[in-house]
Amino acid sequence: MKVAVVGASGYTGLELLRILLRHPEFEIAVATSEQRAGRGVGEAFASLRGRLDLAFEANDPSAYAGRVELAFAALPHAASAPTVKALRGAGVRVVDLSADFRLRDLATYQDWYGPHPAPELLCEAVYGLPELYREPLRGASLAAAPGCYPTSCLLPLVPLLRAGLVETRGLHVDSKSGVSGAGRKVAEEYLFAELSDNFRAYKPGHAHRHAPEIEQEATAAAGEEVRVSFVPQLLPTIRGIATSVYARPRPGADAARARDALERAYADEPFVRVLPEGELPSLQAVKGSNFCDLALVPDARNDTWILLSALDNLIKGASGQAVQCANLMCGLPETSGLLEPALVP
Amino acid sequence: MKVAVVGASGYTGLELLRILLRHPEFEIAVATSEQRAGRGVGEAFASLRGRLDLAFEANDPSAYAGRVELAFAALPHAASAPTVKALRGAGVRVVDLSADFRLRDLATYQDWYGPHPAPELLCEAVYGLPELYREPLRGASLAAAPGCYPTSCLLPLVPLLRAGLVETRGLHVDSKSGVSGAGRKVAEEYLFAELSDNFRAYKPGHAHRHAPEIEQEATAAAGEEVRVSFVPQLLPTIRGIATSVYARPRPGADAARARDALERAYADEPFVRVLPEGELPSLQAVKGSNFCDLALVPDARNDTWILLSALDNLIKGASGQAVQCANLMCGLPETSGLLEPALVP
Amino acid sequence: MKVAVVGASGYTGLELLRILLRHPEFEIAVATSEQRAGRGVGEAFASLRGRLDLAFEANDPSAYAGRVELAFAALPHAASAPTVKALRGAGVRVVDLSADFRLRDLATYQDWYGPHPAPELLCEAVYGLPELYREPLRGASLAAAPGCYPTSCLLPLVPLLRAGLVETRGLHVDSKSGVSGAGRKVAEEYLFAELSDNFRAYKPGHAHRHAPEIEQEATAAAGEEVRVSFVPQLLPTIRGIATSVYARPRPGADAARARDALERAYADEPFVRVLPEGELPSLQAVKGSNFCDLALVPDARNDTWILLSALDNLIKGASGQAVQCANLMCGLPETSGLLEPALVP
Amino acid sequence: MKVAVVGASGYTGLELLRILLRHPEFEIAVATSEQRAGRGVGEAFASLRGRLDLAFEANDPSAYAGRVELAFAALPHAASAPTVKALRGAGVRVVDLSADFRLRDLATYQDWYGPHPAPELLCEAVYGLPELYREPLRGASLAAAPGCYPTSCLLPLVPLLRAGLVETRGLHVDSKSGVSGAGRKVAEEYLFAELSDNFRAYKPGHAHRHAPEIEQEATAAAGEEVRVSFVPQLLPTIRGIATSVYARPRPGADAARARDALERAYADEPFVRVLPEGELPSLQAVKGSNFCDLALVPDARNDTWILLSALDNLIKGASGQAVQCANLMCGLPETSGLLEPALVP
Repeated sequence: MKVAVVGASGYTGLELLRILLRHPEFEIAVATSEQRAGRGVGEAFASLRGRLDLAFEANDPSAYAGRVELAFAALPHAASAPTVKALRGAGVRVVDLSADFRLRDLATYQDWYGPHPAPELLCEAVYGLPELYREPLRGASLAAAPGCYPTSCLLPLVPLLRAGLVETRGLHVDSKSGVSGAGRKVAEEYLFAELSDNFRAYKPGHAHRHAPEIEQEATAAAGEEVRVSFVPQLLPTIRGIATSVYARPRPGADAARARDALERAYADEPFVRVLPEGELPSLQAVKGSNFCDLALVPDARNDTWILLSALDNLIKGASGQAVQCANLMCGLPETSGLLEPALVP
Repeated sequence: MKVAVVGASGYTGLELLRILLRHPEFEIAVATSEQRAGRGVGEAFASLRGRLDLAFEANDPSAYAGRVELAFAALPHAASAPTVKALRGAGVRVVDLSADFRLRDLATYQDWYGPHPAPELLCEAVYGLPELYREPLRGASLAAAPGCYPTSCLLPLVPLLRAGLVETRGLHVDSKSGVSGAGRKVAEEYLFAELSDNFRAYKPGHAHRHAPEIEQEATAAAGEEVRVSFVPQLLPTIRGIATSVYARPRPGADAARARDALERAYADEPFVRVLPEGELPSLQAVKGSNFCDLALVPDARNDTWILLSALDNLIKGASGQAVQCANLMCGLPETSGLLEPALVP
Repeated sequence: MKVAVVGASGYTGLELLRILLRHPEFEIAVATSEQRAGRGVGEAFASLRGRLDLAFEANDPSAYAGRVELAFAALPHAASAPTVKALRGAGVRVVDLSADFRLRDLATYQDWYGPHPAPELLCEAVYGLPELYREPLRGASLAAAPGCYPTSCLLPLVPLLRAGLVETRGLHVDSKSGVSGAGRKVAEEYLFAELSDNFRAYKPGHAHRHAPEIEQEATAAAGEEVRVSFVPQLLPTIRGIATSVYARPRPGADAARARDALERAYADEPFVRVLPEGELPSLQAVKGSNFCDLALVPDARNDTWILLSALDNLIKGASGQAVQCANLMCGLPETSGLLEPALVP
Repeated sequence: MKVAVVGASGYTGLELLRILLRHPEFEIAVATSEQRAGRGVGEAFASLRGRLDLAFEANDPSAYAGRVELAFAALPHAASAPTVKALRGAGVRVVDLSADFRLRDLATYQDWYGPHPAPELLCEAVYGLPELYREPLRGASLAAAPGCYPTSCLLPLVPLLRAGLVETRGLHVDSKSGVSGAGRKVAEEYLFAELSDNFRAYKPGHAHRHAPEIEQEATAAAGEEVRVSFVPQLLPTIRGIATSVYARPRPGADAARARDALERAYADEPFVRVLPEGELPSLQAVKGSNFCDLALVPDARNDTWILLSALDNLIKGASGQAVQCANLMCGLPETSGLLEPALVP
C-alpha cells in the first residue's frame, strides 16, 4: 500500500520514514519537504543514504494524492488542516500528527491555536490513541495522532479515571521531555550550548497547548470535568518523555484496585507495559521503541498515588503511534513495523 | 584560619577543596582520603595539579585535630559521627556534610540509617541551612549541612509554610538531580552508558532518606505536621537539582500574598534569588554557583501553586552551603569564597 | 534456524538480541548470562520486556549445543575460546566477538592477551570483516568478528593499501569511541560523572590491543609491513566510533585515483557508504545502524590524505557485523536483519 | 582599573564577565550588546542576576572610551577592527578576541577573512599567547588573543619546533572542540538534537580559518615554513578542546630531548602543565579553568611523536587568555583572576 509522508524532513517526518522503511505493507511513495524539494532523501539526510531512493517533492496534494492510499501529515498546526482537507477530498486516508484535529471543541482549538482552517473535518477525526480509541480507529479515514505529552499522561491516568478511583481535581502532571519535542526549530533556546547540562520548565500551570488536550481526554474518561496542573520541562536528551502524575485517591479507593485497573486495562496491549511492583520506568527502556512503560506507586501516608510513565516522544509520542493508527485504519496487524525494542544502551 | 577537609576525595570533598582554594580566610591544612592517603592531591586529581601542594592523609583525627580550627566532614553517614565526635572532643568546630546530625529525632535517624554512633552530639548540632537558621549558626560549633534535595525543596516551601498559606498535607515534591548526587559510587547503575540519554525515578513516595529530613524542617516551619510525597529522579547531567513542589493554597490564601512571602523572606539573602514573574529557574543559571533560584507559578484554575527551584547539588546543595555555614560559625562575611557566578554556557 | 547468544547480558550481547529479534531467519533459542541465569530476559532487561520470552541460562555449551545450529559468542577474550571450542566440537557454527580468533599469529596473541586457550582453532577462523573476507566467510564455520576500532580504520584504509597508493609507515590513526566500547565494566573511570562533558585519550601509540589487529589486516592488504600510531579516545556518547586516518600518498599517487579506489571497493557494498565529495561522516548518520560512512579529504599542500570514518561500535563495530558474518556463513542474504537506518535525531 | 567588555553577550563575552567579577583589579564599567542594549546584565543573563548591577549599552566607543582604561573586544571578525581602532584612538588599551589582528600578513588575512578594516594597526598588535610573547605583551597597547584551536596546538608544538626536534612538514593536527566554540550562532547544525550523541569533522585539511594562524606561529617558532593538516571536529560537550598532534622526529632527535624541551619551556608557567609520563590530558581536568595540560607520547616504532593537549576553549582558548594578556599589559600579576581550578566533576 503506497503512502505519503507530508512534511517528511522534520523530526517526526524522519521518524516516520524510518519506521515505514521496515513496515511490511506500507511503501513510501511520496515524501514532501518545502525546503528540500527536488533533493534526494538520502542526499538531504545522510542516515537514509542508500536506504530510500526517492526525492522530496513540494507539498502539492493535487500532485500526489492520486499516487497514495494513505498519508501521514507531519506539518505544523494550521498548516496541516488544508492539506488534510485536500487529501480527504481526494479520498486519501490521513493520519494527522499536528494539533489540528485533536481538540474536539472548536472554541477550545481557537483559544489555543487561532482560527481553524477546516473545522468541518473535526467530526470525522478520531483521536489517535489506540489504547483508548481502538474500535473507532478501525476503518477510520482521519486520525489525529495525540501530542507526546498527552500520551505520556493519559496512558497511566485514564484507567484510574474510568474506574472512578481518583479525584478529578488537583491532578499534578510533571513532565520531562527530550529536546526533539520542539522539532527542528532553529532558535537560540534550542542550541546545544543552551540545553546540554541544563534542565528547565517552560509554560507551567495551564499555559502549554497540551494542557487542554490532556483535560479533554481525561474528562472524557472520567465522565466529569478533570483539571490538571501541567509542568512541561526540557531534559538534556534528544528523545523521551517521562511523566509523574500525582493523583489523590477517592475516598474508599485502595491501591490494589488501582493497580488492578491499570493491569487489566493494558493486559492485552502490545505496547503498554505495566511494570511489576518495585520496578520503575526509565527512558532507557523505551528510547527508540513504540513502548510506553507505566508504574503506580501508592503513598498512602500522604493520600497520594504517583503514576510514572516513560515513552519515546518521537515514536509512541508521535510517529510510531501514527503508524499504529494507520495499521488499524487499514486492517493490518496493529504491531506491523513497530516491534523494535529500545536502543539499549 | 586552618581547616581540614575530611573525606576530601569524594565529589563533595573535591568541591570543598575548590571553594576553599579561593576563600580569603580559610586555608586547607589537612585533606584526608583513605584510598589515596600518601598521594599528593594534585597527583590524585589532575584538576588540582599545581593548585594545592598537599598530600592526602588517612583520617586519624588525633593526628590532625591539633593543626586545624575547623573541619569539614564529607564522609558517609555513620562513618562521619565518630570523626565528628573526636574533632569536637579536641575543640575543633565541625561542619558535617553527612546525614548524621540532620535529623533531630534519634528514632527517626535509626529508622532510616541504623544505630547512631554519637547521639549525644545531636543537641549540639544546628541544621545548616543559613536562610532558616542563620542566628543559631553564628557561633555554633557543629553544623549539619542539609541534604541536597531538602535544600531545593525547603527554600521555596518554608516561607509559605511559615506564613500559613499552604495546606500541610498532600504536598508533592518532584525532584530531578544530576548524577553527582550519588557521589563517586562505583555501581553498574551509575555507568555513563546506563545514565546518558536516560532519566528515571528511584525510591519514590516516602522511600528516600531525604523525605524525613524534608518533613522535619517543613513541619518545624509550619508548626504542624507536614507530609510530602517525594519523587527523586536522575537527570543525565553531572550537577544540579531542579525541584517542582505542588502545593494547595489554604482557603483564602492568594497568590499575591504567597509571592510577597517569598520575596520578603529572601529580599536580603545573598544566595537565594526569587525570579521576577514570567521567569523560571534553570540549572544553567546556577551550575557551578552557590545560588538557588526560585519561582512561584499559581494555577488558580486547579487550586494549585507550583514552586520551582534550581541549585547546584554539590554547591548550594552541599559544599557551598557548608562553607556558608562555616563563614557564619567563624564570624566571617557569609559570602566569602562563594560569589562565583554559574559556569555559563 | 535456532541460534544461541552466549554472553547475552553484556552490551554486544544485548545488541545481538535486538538485531536477532528482527531477523527473518534466525531465532534466539538460547541466551546465556552467568550473573542473570534463571531470570527472564525481559525481567533482567526492561527494554526487552514483552519482546523475548526466554530465560537466561548459565553458559554450559554441552547443555545447549544440541539446541542450536549457530552461536554468537560475546564473552571476554580468553573466556571465549573454550566455549567456542566446545561448540565447534559439537558441530555448531560460531561467530566469536571476542579477540580470541582475530590475530592469526599465536605469538602476537600471547604478547597482548596471554596464553591462548584453543590455538588449534586459529587456522579455522576467518576474520569477520565481510567487505574484506566475503568469500572465505561463505560457508565458514568460525568467524572472528573484528574489533570496533579496527573496523573503523580498515574500511577506509584497506582499498588504498591494496592499490599501493599510500605509504605503509607513518600512518596516524586518531579514533574516538563512545563509552559502550568498554562494555558493561563497572569501574570508577566509566561513571557518568567522570565521562560526561569529558574527552580523553587512553593507551595511545602502540599500547591498545587493537593496534596489532589493525596492523595485521593492513599488512595483509598492503603485502608489506604496515605500521600505525593509534590513539584511542573516549567520547561522551554511548555509541559510535569516528576515526581519522592520516596517510601519506606514495610518490605519483594522486587523490583522484585514491577516491576511485575507495569508490570502486565499495560500489556494491550494502553497508559501506563512500560519501560524495564535500560531505563528511558523522556519528549521527550511523548511530543505531550497520552502516559505515567514509570520506577522503586530500590535503595536497601538506602531502597528506585524510580518511574519515564513522560507524556504530556496537553494530557495524560488533554485533551487526557478527550477524552479517552469520548471514554469509549460512547462505542467507547478507543484509538480513541489518537494514535499519540510524536513529536520527 | 575600569574596563569595558565589548560584545559582552556572546559566549566569550559572558566568560569575560565571569572572570572579571572575581578579578581583584579590573572593574567592569561597560558591557555592550546590540541586541540587549538597555537591559540589565542580570536580567538578560540569569546566571549574573544579583552579581553585576550594570545595563548593557550599544557599542559606541565614543560614548564609553572615556570611562575605561582597557577594553576587551569580543566581536566577530571585521566587526571588531573598527571598534579597536576607535578605542586605540582614544588611548584605550585593547585585548581583541576576534581574528582581526592575529594574522601578521595582510594578504593572508584577506584571503581568509576579506578586506581588513584597519590594517594600520596590524604592526601594533602583539599575538596574545603569553607563553610565547610574554615580553612583548608587557606594556603592549593592543593584544590579539589567539584562536582556541591554535592555542591547543601551539602550546605542545612550539617548544619542539623551536628546539628543531621535529619535521616541519607532514604535521597532523586532529582537534576536537566543544560546541561553544561556534559561539551563540543560531543555525540548525548547532541545535541540541543535531549535536548531542554526535561527533563530526568540519572543514578538514586546510579549510578552517585557524589553519593559517597555526602555521604562522609554528613557522615563526621553527624559523622555516611549517605545514599542518588540520582537522577540527565537534564534540558533544559545551566546552573544551582536545588536540592530538602527530609529528615526526627529525633524524637523531630522541624523545627524552623532546620531553625535556617541553618541560623546560613550561617549568615556570602558571597555566601550562606538562603531565608526568603515563598521565594524559582530559577535558575534565581543565574545564572551567585557565589551565592547558600537555603530554608527549613517543611511538618510536612508527617514528612518530604524539602530542596531546586539553584546555577550556572559552578560557585558556579565549577569555582567560585575554585576561592573562591584560594582566601583563597592565603590569599586574599574570595570574590575577585566573586561578580557579576546573569544575570537577
